[in-house]
Amino acid sequence: MNTPEKEHISDWLQGLQDTICQGLEKLDGQSNFVEDKWKRADGGGGRTRTFKDGDLIEKGGVNFSAVHGPTPPKILEALKLKEADFFATGVSIVLHPNNPWAPIIHMNVRYFEMDNGVWWFGGGIDLTPHIIVDEKAKAFHDSLKKICDTHHKDYYPKFKVWADDYFYLSHRNETRGVGGIFFDRLSEDDAITKEDRWDFVKDLGSSFVSIYTDATNNLRNKECTEADKNWQEIRRGRYVEFNLVHDKGTKFGLDTDGRTESILVSMPPRAQWHYDFQPSNEDHLRTQSLLKKGIDWVSK
Amino acid sequence: MNTPEKEHISDWLQGLQDTICQGLEKLDGQSNFVEDKWKRADGGGGRTRTFKDGDLIEKGGVNFSAVHGPTPPKILEALKLKEADFFATGVSIVLHPNNPWAPIIHMNVRYFEMDNGVWWFGGGIDLTPHIIVDEKAKAFHDSLKKICDTHHKDYYPKFKVWADDYFYLSHRNETRGVGGIFFDRLSEDDAITKEDRWDFVKDLGSSFVSIYTDATNNLRNKECTEADKNWQEIRRGRYVEFNLVHDKGTKFGLDTDGRTESILVSMPPRAQWHYDFQPSNEDHLRTQSLLKKGIDWVSK
Repeated sequence: MNTPEKEHISDWLQGLQDTICQGLEKLDGQSNFVEDKWKRADGGGGRTRTFKDGDLIEKGGVNFSAVHGPTPPKILEALKLKEADFFATGVSIVLHPNNPWAPIIHMNVRYFEMDNGVWWFGGGIDLTPHIIVDEKAKAFHDSLKKICDTHHKDYYPKFKVWADDYFYLSHRNETRGVGGIFFDRLSEDDAITKEDRWDFVKDLGSSFVSIYTDATNNLRNKECTEADKNWQEIRRGRYVEFNLVHDKGTKFGLDTDGRTESILVSMPPRAQWHYDFQPSNEDHLRTQSLLKKGIDWVSK
Repeated sequence: MNTPEKEHISDWLQGLQDTICQGLEKLDGQSNFVEDKWKRADGGGGRTRTFKDGDLIEKGGVNFSAVHGPTPPKILEALKLKEADFFATGVSIVLHPNNPWAPIIHMNVRYFEMDNGVWWFGGGIDLTPHIIVDEKAKAFHDSLKKICDTHHKDYYPKFKVWADDYFYLSHRNETRGVGGIFFDRLSEDDAITKEDRWDFVKDLGSSFVSIYTDATNNLRNKECTEADKNWQEIRRGRYVEFNLVHDKGTKFGLDTDGRTESILVSMPPRAQWHYDFQPSNEDHLRTQSLLKKGIDWVSK
């Protein structure tokens, strides 16, 4: 087997975007993706695909990009490296469902390399229920553990903790949702080759539609109250807070003159803020109590 | 006249909070402020006063705080100073009106000192119309120029440009609204004493209710369409983006373990995001075209 080259990785990820968009259109059954192609002044570009007013999905985006050029100074500083050209490609997804019982989902898989030989894979997937349904959170983590375990026994335990730490609103002292997995700067080592890393990333990416199908099955048409809808918009407000205050990808994109409308497809269609809001509904209260690190969903 | 001491400044600002809250309750005529007193673990505390469901004001806050203790490392680094105790006091206001024709307003006046003798005043006021009404933007700037000119001929021109630069969403390439004035680290120099600075800050603070009365007069009950209401929520989305991505006070507060609910009273009650939204309404389009730096509202 050959070491995957950047062109191969980028082509595969572009194909993944197609597969996922087709799968989500079928899953939704009501609306379709609309595509905007864009070019980056300094090199490369992307395909932003957005979705709205579906049966399942109220607003969402599945973005692909492959960009290159001189490495942004901020990355060079962080890596303590001299000037180098970079290449970065990835697929990024955020979906906001209509029904408050259905969860928000996010996935990102990405590859980065520089012409000085440095390269890595990064990514993650996490689930943000407006109202936590334990068996769904468990099933989500079970699926992720299964994918991880196929590739390396350390992946799930390590990447699960990493997600707990990453998808965390320190200013609220709460996690974004029930977590998932997160990983960054996965390069090769004595035991793990570039092919191994790439196989893992491909498996994760390929599982997306099936994972979101399971996560929303039996919930997407569940009856909900006006209080559930308001709570959904409050939770979406927290999603906004995470993305604009904490998310490194969003921050980096906005700081480095990225395409704002593509970056902010992650924003919910509608969000609410109330001073010192305290839920009174039992399901909402229980959800709030479960927004913490270290919950072992697989063993639930 | 004596140099104002920190206790005097803090007392006066606390009184300003009272005066402004009373004035706004009278102006609104329908709802009242609710107060939360809070203490800071490392020293000091504040009074958060929030307002909702008024006739004019849908959601807002008028906060007072006076905090002290060891200077946060981030400030020491920025000032290249060794350890010192600090004292900071201020009043912060954000009001979100019901009617999309009435503007969002923000004001902040603050005083900071360290026990090594360093001190300064800072603050500003800016108006964010959802739909720009030229004569109101002009009247707002006329009022600010008048207050500034009483104290120093350089204040208005300098602080107006500072506001254009500060209240700016670089990732959108647009200003937050029609600007106003912004100033920071105003200390004394050969020509300007601490009393002079303080007199200016007091005049600005004292003018708030009158300024917001003028800014909303004839607009607070203006007829509006569903399209105006949606546009209002989209503009509120931009307000969220500014506060969470760019505003230094918000960032600093969230980074340094400030009281989150007090910091985020600035959030609107409800906001919307749509992918690549383009207004079709003439008033909305015109507003978007005026969200830029360097407009000389006083000469309009």
